[in-house]
Amino acid sequence: MKKNSITHLPPSRRQFLRQFALGSGAFAFGAPLIASTPLIIRKPAKKLGVALVGLGNYATNQLAPSLQDTEHCYLAGIVTGTKEKEAKWIEKYNIPTKNIYNYDNFDQIANNDDIDIVYVVLPNSMHAEYTIRAAKAGKHVICEKPMGLSVKECEDMIAACKANKVKLSIGYRLHFDPHHMEIIKLPKEKPFGAVKYVNAEFGFRIGDPTQWRLRKNLAGGGAIMDVGVYCIQGARYATGEEPIAVTAREFKTDPVKFAEVDETVTWEMEFPSGAIANCTTSYAFSTNRLHVGMEKGTAEVQPSYSYRGLAGHVNRKPMDFPVKRQQASQMDNFAQVINSGGESEVSGQEGLLDLKVVEAMYKSIKKKGKRVKV
Amino acid sequence: MKKNSITHLPPSRRQFLRQFALGSGAFAFGAPLIASTPLIIRKPAKKLGVALVGLGNYATNQLAPSLQDTEHCYLAGIVTGTKEKEAKWIEKYNIPTKNIYNYDNFDQIANNDDIDIVYVVLPNSMHAEYTIRAAKAGKHVICEKPMGLSVKECEDMIAACKANKVKLSIGYRLHFDPHHMEIIKLPKEKPFGAVKYVNAEFGFRIGDPTQWRLRKNLAGGGAIMDVGVYCIQGARYATGEEPIAVTAREFKTDPVKFAEVDETVTWEMEFPSGAIANCTTSYAFSTNRLHVGMEKGTAEVQPSYSYRGLAGHVNRKPMDFPVKRQQASQMDNFAQVINSGGESEVSGQEGLLDLKVVEAMYKSIKKKGKRVKV
Repeated sequence: MKKNSITHLPPSRRQFLRQFALGSGAFAFGAPLIASTPLIIRKPAKKLGVALVGLGNYATNQLAPSLQDTEHCYLAGIVTGTKEKEAKWIEKYNIPTKNIYNYDNFDQIANNDDIDIVYVVLPNSMHAEYTIRAAKAGKHVICEKPMGLSVKECEDMIAACKANKVKLSIGYRLHFDPHHMEIIKLPKEKPFGAVKYVNAEFGFRIGDPTQWRLRKNLAGGGAIMDVGVYCIQGARYATGEEPIAVTAREFKTDPVKFAEVDETVTWEMEFPSGAIANCTTSYAFSTNRLHVGMEKGTAEVQPSYSYRGLAGHVNRKPMDFPVKRQQASQMDNFAQVINSGGESEVSGQEGLLDLKVVEAMYKSIKKKGKRVKV
Repeated sequence: MKKNSITHLPPSRRQFLRQFALGSGAFAFGAPLIASTPLIIRKPAKKLGVALVGLGNYATNQLAPSLQDTEHCYLAGIVTGTKEKEAKWIEKYNIPTKNIYNYDNFDQIANNDDIDIVYVVLPNSMHAEYTIRAAKAGKHVICEKPMGLSVKECEDMIAACKANKVKLSIGYRLHFDPHHMEIIKLPKEKPFGAVKYVNAEFGFRIGDPTQWRLRKNLAGGGAIMDVGVYCIQGARYATGEEPIAVTAREFKTDPVKFAEVDETVTWEMEFPSGAIANCTTSYAFSTNRLHVGMEKGTAEVQPSYSYRGLAGHVNRKPMDFPVKRQQASQMDNFAQVINSGGESEVSGQEGLLDLKVVEAMYKSIKKKGKRVKV
């Protein structure tokens, strides 16, 4: 296990680095670094402490392992309602007991300087509440996708982070995957002319019928909310534009399993340039593709939205990138953004824009595929 | 150049084989093959003579070269309105002058025993007329896709062939491509459960704005008629079902170039089992995929509709087939069907069923994406 580098230093040095990085100005030892004449000093980057809120599959099998690969942040704490998980995580990740919270004492995290970032990995319906509570506790927040259940929730989350002067980012890991970074470049650099078309499809066959993803009150929706947002994202960054209208239709082959949420949805997105996207999302079958049709060429990532094994080409030239955990890159980027004072590329605004499309899609579905302006 | 094998035999033998194969019963030489007690005699297969009607790009660069690779038929004649083409084709393919027709004397082909099959490769608006005239001339017909401009035309073509006791097939070359043959097997053999989803996309950026494909009166429609029919075909054979409803929407980014015909169309097809297809066709950008989502796996051909270079997998197992001209396999199949007395897998009925979908699509487009029953 790769440990947080700070923990390997002697206590006094650790204390110094923390205080220095936090800008406390209390230099604990050695000659003063600031001379009488002003000097520009680059602060040594501090590894930021991340607390995972909700220890489900994604936190357990993706985020925690990824936090062993990060350079600018580390797994500092956990928030769980399941007592038995605590001991396991303490043993596996050497987490101090004082950095372990449950949903009753969560707000006390405000007093814990080890925690810089709260990563909300809860069921969708709890994203807004825990993002807002984390912001009020003065912590920066990463919230998993979908950001919230509605545009209104997203607005409230953004406002809370702003009011509490903390940064907010959404768990859009693919912005930091090299394959998708190639796609993001296409509308900016136009190597093969304007982007005319996007086909974005993400579907898989969902298992356990009792899981929260199939409950409307917890998930807010079905395939759209869970994997459809990847397609919305893909279409938005492959065109570099915001959609002006959508048309969407739902198809249901298992009305029992999918009684509460959408099973399969197809939809189009129209962009101001005239580019269009044709998308599919489903809980009933597998498809996993982001295809871009440009004036003079094509680009594609397939499989596109998986955690690993991505493959693609830009106009037949294969993409060939070293394997790296997307979530490690994503969290490192956010830590750097916090340290540098910038804004996340996948800020709350990104999440909100996706929810605007989601709301328009549900409206279009209700109106049997009628065109709905975004 | 590979020649028709019959032409290498001495004249008397050639004559014998022709008469024998045609069932004339006139045995020109040698001991009688039929003894006083009845014997079952397998007729030696005759290579059927094909006349290409319309010497455009497809006839010139695909069909004629493919006819050099066929085993059961050969290039016997041509029909062209362009005098200069005659000499070139005579020289290149050794076509007898008596087997060359133009659009004025076309119907005299009835008297030419060298021609067994007429292959109609004309602009779409002329498919019905020349198929019907060929049938009346007593010739079997291959008609390029789209079969006609309407279901009504298809019905007339089928009726004419039936009345004249000739066989009709449509130029659906992909039924005879091994990649697509794997797809065709999926709904029959269900190796990974039921087919739930098809994504079929075929688009390319069309060039010359003066070509007949962009004229409504010649093409009948745009991308749908030209390459969209491959997607309709793909969805139909990947599911093994006939669609019950379609929804379709048109998007136009170049209203000048595509003033008369459809540029980009997206549509869904609903099948009785609940399977759905989401399709895209375009004259504005490239996409070329047939993807099948089954209950427990996926299959895909991409590129899917090209003349060569197809690639695919069935549940991640790559398809690996020897390269063969699709059109050679297609024409050989038809020749064998004629010789064996069977019915073509890509009969007029196949073409008619596609046109039913095409008509429903245009109706849905007119009604702004409303669901239209097929």
